[in-house]
Amino acid sequence: MASKERLAKDFANMEKFSDGGEGITRLAFTRPDRQAAAYIAGRMKELGLTLREDAFGNIIGRREGLFPGEAPVMFGSHVDSVPSGGNFDGTAGVLAAIEAIEMMNEEGFKNECPIELALFMCEESSRFGAATLGSRAMCGLLTAEDTKKLKDRQGVSLYDALKSLDLDPDGLESSVYKGNPKAFFEMHIEQGKVLEAEGKPIGIVTGIAAPTRMKITFEGMADHSGATPMGMRRDALCAASEAVLELERLASAETGVPAVGTVGVISVKPGAINVIPGTAEITVDIRSISKEVKASVTESFTAFIKASSEKRGVKTNIELISDEKPVMLPQETVKYLEKICAETGAPHITMPSGAGHDAMHWAERTRTGMIFIPCRGGISHNKDEYADIDHIALGADILCRAVKGASAKDFRW
Amino acid sequence: MASKERLAKDFANMEKFSDGGEGITRLAFTRPDRQAAAYIAGRMKELGLTLREDAFGNIIGRREGLFPGEAPVMFGSHVDSVPSGGNFDGTAGVLAAIEAIEMMNEEGFKNECPIELALFMCEESSRFGAATLGSRAMCGLLTAEDTKKLKDRQGVSLYDALKSLDLDPDGLESSVYKGNPKAFFEMHIEQGKVLEAEGKPIGIVTGIAAPTRMKITFEGMADHSGATPMGMRRDALCAASEAVLELERLASAETGVPAVGTVGVISVKPGAINVIPGTAEITVDIRSISKEVKASVTESFTAFIKASSEKRGVKTNIELISDEKPVMLPQETVKYLEKICAETGAPHITMPSGAGHDAMHWAERTRTGMIFIPCRGGISHNKDEYADIDHIALGADILCRAVKGASAKDFRW
Repeated sequence: MASKERLAKDFANMEKFSDGGEGITRLAFTRPDRQAAAYIAGRMKELGLTLREDAFGNIIGRREGLFPGEAPVMFGSHVDSVPSGGNFDGTAGVLAAIEAIEMMNEEGFKNECPIELALFMCEESSRFGAATLGSRAMCGLLTAEDTKKLKDRQGVSLYDALKSLDLDPDGLESSVYKGNPKAFFEMHIEQGKVLEAEGKPIGIVTGIAAPTRMKITFEGMADHSGATPMGMRRDALCAASEAVLELERLASAETGVPAVGTVGVISVKPGAINVIPGTAEITVDIRSISKEVKASVTESFTAFIKASSEKRGVKTNIELISDEKPVMLPQETVKYLEKICAETGAPHITMPSGAGHDAMHWAERTRTGMIFIPCRGGISHNKDEYADIDHIALGADILCRAVKGASAKDFRW
Repeated sequence: MASKERLAKDFANMEKFSDGGEGITRLAFTRPDRQAAAYIAGRMKELGLTLREDAFGNIIGRREGLFPGEAPVMFGSHVDSVPSGGNFDGTAGVLAAIEAIEMMNEEGFKNECPIELALFMCEESSRFGAATLGSRAMCGLLTAEDTKKLKDRQGVSLYDALKSLDLDPDGLESSVYKGNPKAFFEMHIEQGKVLEAEGKPIGIVTGIAAPTRMKITFEGMADHSGATPMGMRRDALCAASEAVLELERLASAETGVPAVGTVGVISVKPGAINVIPGTAEITVDIRSISKEVKASVTESFTAFIKASSEKRGVKTNIELISDEKPVMLPQETVKYLEKICAETGAPHITMPSGAGHDAMHWAERTRTGMIFIPCRGGISHNKDEYADIDHIALGADILCRAVKGASAKDFRW
């Protein structure tokens, strides 16, 4: 069983690595992020793992197996944070992995295949505007050119940030993982409130949704609010409001593989109490773990907008900002994790992940499983982010069993 | 018949009085506004009117009647403007009145009752945040205290502005009109596009709408756009969007005495593409010339908001900003102006005024009539404001006939 005392001590130590202010500010490759990485590396060493650091700064701690030539079972997460974020997003998964190694050592577990604990750098997009960069580098999805283009708010490129830390952006090819791991597991806080609402401590992730994002502009006619009869209006906000509600309707109607649709930003011009909005602009974020479902919602939505705006004499411009590929996690890992939960009596549900994670890149290369634990009120990326130590310990237990089981040489899904 | 040449010359002269920049900037009691008022006073004098200026600076030019003891027929408008406005809002009505006197003089018309041409100060709310102040002063609706509270953006009070021009805010009671005029008429550009759409040069105003204004806040819950299933959301923007569309539906449904309803401003917080809006705020502007219709739309709307938001778990706060009283113009003046239009063959329609005018205060004291002429594209309060000289001249003809007719001692409505 996971030790809550050890876990609590690790969380308390990690809490020290922050740039100050409210919550935890541990932006990728800043001083507190390096300190946090060094702390985790120190813990891995303490536990007898063999460490290597790749050209991007990712740290991999290896627990050698009885068959060192076999593909390793990998698990891990990240410890960087958003500004004024919490001490659980990413960190909970890394400390659960550390605790899993503690448990293996405690019981003298001998793994047949090697086990690798990975600490991925730069998972959050807060500093360089792009997420899961460490995993991308290990999966061959990041080039030196990319690192030159990605810049933080001070104008420092990721390339220069890496150089200044004696890392090697020009040698990123060397950081690409050789072969494929046998499996990949990640534990993470849910960052939503489904588990809390369902009263379940464990969520087994069925897939990782990715957003299709758009900016939509409605061009009507700005007229006097008093002098323009209802029948003569070309109200851009009315057109945008129909879009907001139709997106909600369409996403809610996906009752098979679910979808979500959100308008998070809206603005109108000229924006005066006595002027009919001539222009309205909205952002749209549509997600599903199914590429097909996401495409279907997106298509129905854009078709609706065009038709309904045309009726109003309102012109629309739809700008696609991004269209990322969602990842379905394989049935085998979902069933495997469900079986472990059943054996340990851990109440659980299966659920999609709305946010992206390091695991999504590994899912392209190997059988990948993700374990969610609840976070209070669904709050994350916020100083009030909090996860219960009981849930973290339970997640660590499941994670440990999953990794141990999969590391058997003759393990079959 | 009105002389387009004289009118064009007056418009050209008036165009000079502006603070520079685009369009006409002639804010109340600023230098160009005083110059414009002096020009109009000069024109009145030229035409043989007897001038008086009241404590607020309103200028009244009197064409004495054969029966000087009778109540006068009054007509007029204003020449102050919004920033970067046009040369027609207000000014068209004043110059049409000047042209009416020109016509009376030309034909040697002898009026039985006195005729008074009023130039009202400070009709626009642009400088002091309140509209039709000159008419209010003449109708006993403005006190010295009020003028101390009303301040411009530089912090100058209306009181001090009046003092610095040797006007007499402390003596405002002296500016209250003695007795009631026999009738009041005002010609004005429509500031909407109904006349243009209907292809009619004359609109006879049935009433002056006044707004009920509200600020409505919707408090839902800001959650992650990816991690929050549709069924678990309390989306403040969805609630606000329903309100926007319901207001449109309710106002459009008033097919008897019409109503208009507008949401001109909307904002959401936190306002990020990947966060469900936790708060949405809208402004609401509801108008009708009927107090009852306006109240009915307002009541149905607020009841809808409360019910629909409650279903969503969204709290609403409705703040009433203002609830002004609309004015119905009397049937007699509408029919009188219709008859004049019919006699002169002027194509016309009856219509409400969506915007406020000096006439609304006079409507409380005497039989009041308003004549609208088209403005191009419905554009007003804008440098592109424009009215056709043919329409202005036709409006001046109708105005002149209306005033002349009503000035007969035995005139009966």
